[in-house]
Amino acid sequence: MYRVHGMTGSGNCHKVRQILELTNQPYEWVEVDLLAGATRTPEFLAMNPNGKVPVLEFDDGRTLPESNAILCYLAEGTAWLPEDRFARAQVLQWLFFEQYSHEPAIAVARFIKVFLPEDHPRRAELPGLVERGNRVLAVMDRHLAERAFFVGNVPTVADIALHDYTHRAADGGFDLDAFPHVQAWLARLLANGFREMTA
Amino acid sequence: MYRVHGMTGSGNCHKVRQILELTNQPYEWVEVDLLAGATRTPEFLAMNPNGKVPVLEFDDGRTLPESNAILCYLAEGTAWLPEDRFARAQVLQWLFFEQYSHEPAIAVARFIKVFLPEDHPRRAELPGLVERGNRVLAVMDRHLAERAFFVGNVPTVADIALHDYTHRAADGGFDLDAFPHVQAWLARLLANGFREMTA
Repeated sequence: MYRVHGMTGSGNCHKVRQILELTNQPYEWVEVDLLAGATRTPEFLAMNPNGKVPVLEFDDGRTLPESNAILCYLAEGTAWLPEDRFARAQVLQWLFFEQYSHEPAIAVARFIKVFLPEDHPRRAELPGLVERGNRVLAVMDRHLAERAFFVGNVPTVADIALHDYTHRAADGGFDLDAFPHVQAWLARLLANGFREMTA
Repeated sequence: MYRVHGMTGSGNCHKVRQILELTNQPYEWVEVDLLAGATRTPEFLAMNPNGKVPVLEFDDGRTLPESNAILCYLAEGTAWLPEDRFARAQVLQWLFFEQYSHEPAIAVARFIKVFLPEDHPRRAELPGLVERGNRVLAVMDRHLAERAFFVGNVPTVADIALHDYTHRAADGGFDLDAFPHVQAWLARLLANGFREMTA
């Protein structure tokens, strides 16, 4: 059985829970207390030298970090990761878009607003992050104007990766009313069995 | 024949050139003048709505953005992307590490030092970027202490993705003398036919 080392409330960690539940794969969740330094212990760094959650642990002790690499691994052989060479590359395109353009704006804005104190100096980053995040949401909205899902006619790991921080975007100060196709897509994912993050 | 829309001097673009040359696939290079706004034209945004280089264009007009998605596409069926499910996931792990942890520190420091004027306000970001970048280089150095390449016994697209901005890290104010295993790996890649960026 897989063991997932993750933090509740982290979208990157929730992605892993999402694919495991959508594909009915059993797993054990190990809560990691990031803020108490649990990702800096020698034991954790042996699993992921980069000191980040989530990490997927196998029965034989092998470990795999990086949420989107984990998504691809767990989706292999299912419709969540298409076989077609170009469609698979398009899924990867959106996974890299998520980690490079989306997460560093939208998830980081949420982190600063929700997890840091009111007078924290990083609050100065918020206006810039909201501007970048709105550009990212506009890219998604235009793409979804003509499509039900990011790649092809069924949801893939690209939708899983982009779902979590998008549906919590209001936490970071974003107004999804400006992005109706994104809103319709979020509703469509719920109708396809997706779960929202509860924290 | 593939057409690569890219900017000379960008490591993300150079990666695409690297895989095409290492696998002897012919291509045409289309120079994109980023600083003159060439990624903001309607024609460019039709190829990549996120307005970034590189973009791979196919003979039939299809386009694929995101450097690491392009690497995976072009490496499919070669030893540059392993068939084994876990090894493939490990390659993806390092590709996401590169885009999330490495590039935003090491390439951005280089961009600020090389491309922005001496009195630009973004120079204030440099000390923080150098600190983050040194942590990333330390992760790579520990990993490479026991291995010739990032995954397995032959170079993969993970090595291609991590090569370009690492060998130009001094441009951003990093001192690779502190990371001897990274230096030995860079030399090993050159001996395996890798080319350095000339600009």
